[in-house]
Amino acid sequence: MSKHNNKKQNTFQVYGYNNCLSLLKEADYKIISIQILEEKKSVFFQKIDFQKYSKLIHFLSKKDFYKKFDNIRSQGIVICFEGPIIRKFDNYKLENQNSCLLILDQIEDPQNAGQIIRTAECAGINGIIFPSHNSFKLTNTIINISQGAFVNMHLYEVTNISTTILELKKNDYWIIGIENSIDSKLWSELDYSGNIAIVVGSEGKGIRKKVIDHCDFLGNIPMQGNTNSLNVSAAVSAVLFERLRQIKFK
Amino acid sequence: MSKHNNKKQNTFQVYGYNNCLSLLKEADYKIISIQILEEKKSVFFQKIDFQKYSKLIHFLSKKDFYKKFDNIRSQGIVICFEGPIIRKFDNYKLENQNSCLLILDQIEDPQNAGQIIRTAECAGINGIIFPSHNSFKLTNTIINISQGAFVNMHLYEVTNISTTILELKKNDYWIIGIENSIDSKLWSELDYSGNIAIVVGSEGKGIRKKVIDHCDFLGNIPMQGNTNSLNVSAAVSAVLFERLRQIKFK
Repeated sequence: MSKHNNKKQNTFQVYGYNNCLSLLKEADYKIISIQILEEKKSVFFQKIDFQKYSKLIHFLSKKDFYKKFDNIRSQGIVICFEGPIIRKFDNYKLENQNSCLLILDQIEDPQNAGQIIRTAECAGINGIIFPSHNSFKLTNTIINISQGAFVNMHLYEVTNISTTILELKKNDYWIIGIENSIDSKLWSELDYSGNIAIVVGSEGKGIRKKVIDHCDFLGNIPMQGNTNSLNVSAAVSAVLFERLRQIKFK
Repeated sequence: MSKHNNKKQNTFQVYGYNNCLSLLKEADYKIISIQILEEKKSVFFQKIDFQKYSKLIHFLSKKDFYKKFDNIRSQGIVICFEGPIIRKFDNYKLENQNSCLLILDQIEDPQNAGQIIRTAECAGINGIIFPSHNSFKLTNTIINISQGAFVNMHLYEVTNISTTILELKKNDYWIIGIENSIDSKLWSELDYSGNIAIVVGSEGKGIRKKVIDHCDFLGNIPMQGNTNSLNVSAAVSAVLFERLRQIKFK
């Protein structure tokens, strides 16, 4: 995935059991084709309405299937579909109690982006916001790493993160940045209740200064070893489950 | 990486800034060669003792370097070295206060294994135990994903996890399994103080029944979305930083 590739992808391909069954549960997407390995037919028979999709399902012989999908962990199923994966932020409904958005600033690595989508969905986050520039683009790689979570997680691509943050603040959202800084508190001492947006940056570059300036609070996770940098998706997991503990299980 | 490949690797290759500088800081490893992209010489000049390694350093032209290392994110440096990466568990010093070991049962995915090593080091874990069968093998891929953390994290390969757990219990370790089960508590309600070992299993298969039977406590992280499974390295991050919060920052 090149970060310079600004052409937006509209047709996606998902594979594997979890991804494909998650996708078919949602009515939002336009299914283009469902390709199934002939010998796995019985596995999917009870899970997929073969009749409903009869015109779109293709059963492929082992030879044909692996000729097309040799390098992916397909588990015998591949679905092509059309969006909408990316939503407009204007359509976001501002909620009133313990709503939490995640803002990804300059995260380019597809592995991290996909894992974060998956973790955010498991942790009950309401949406993920990312900028259209200097950021990952939603690709097949990312949605497949998310293991079906992209279906249930609202993904908002915005032109300008600062503008979006200001809009959130106008609607009484608190903005929390995860960043090492002399002003930052321990991640576990932050108050995650109420409507909040949590901002994280890339491992190398962190959050951009102008975005940090918009944050109401900063939090950090102190490193206990000699390696100074936690993977950003691991940091997101630590923070989102601390939030969940505070608002739901304290 | 094939799970059937039981031949142990002794010579490893690390690349990238963090990995290579972490490695050179430790005296334990036998450096075989240091290959640097000629044009990056000045970047490493202040960080690496060129004189000490003069017989082992090779500066390569752009053409030669990328001919050899085209597919890896080398950042202009690649080091070949020999172990010891894997230690014998007999040599583990049983500690007396808030010591924590992580036991990985049947985790085969190299991406997860590498991320877990990195997260464990950042969270101040004392060592990682994994079985010699039905498990990842330590490969270049894993140690490079760990971003230099393999240097500071003791990795113990054992023949039989149950035997190791019984030995730990004899030495007053409590064993905590992370697993959905009717007997399991919330991950945040577990007490992580004292000497403990935390057991996690693979996403698909979980912890083996006979290993669960040895656990003193079970904990689970309740899923908040429709996707039912958190990535195992994300789960490890949530649990290890909850432990850190409890023992250090409460």
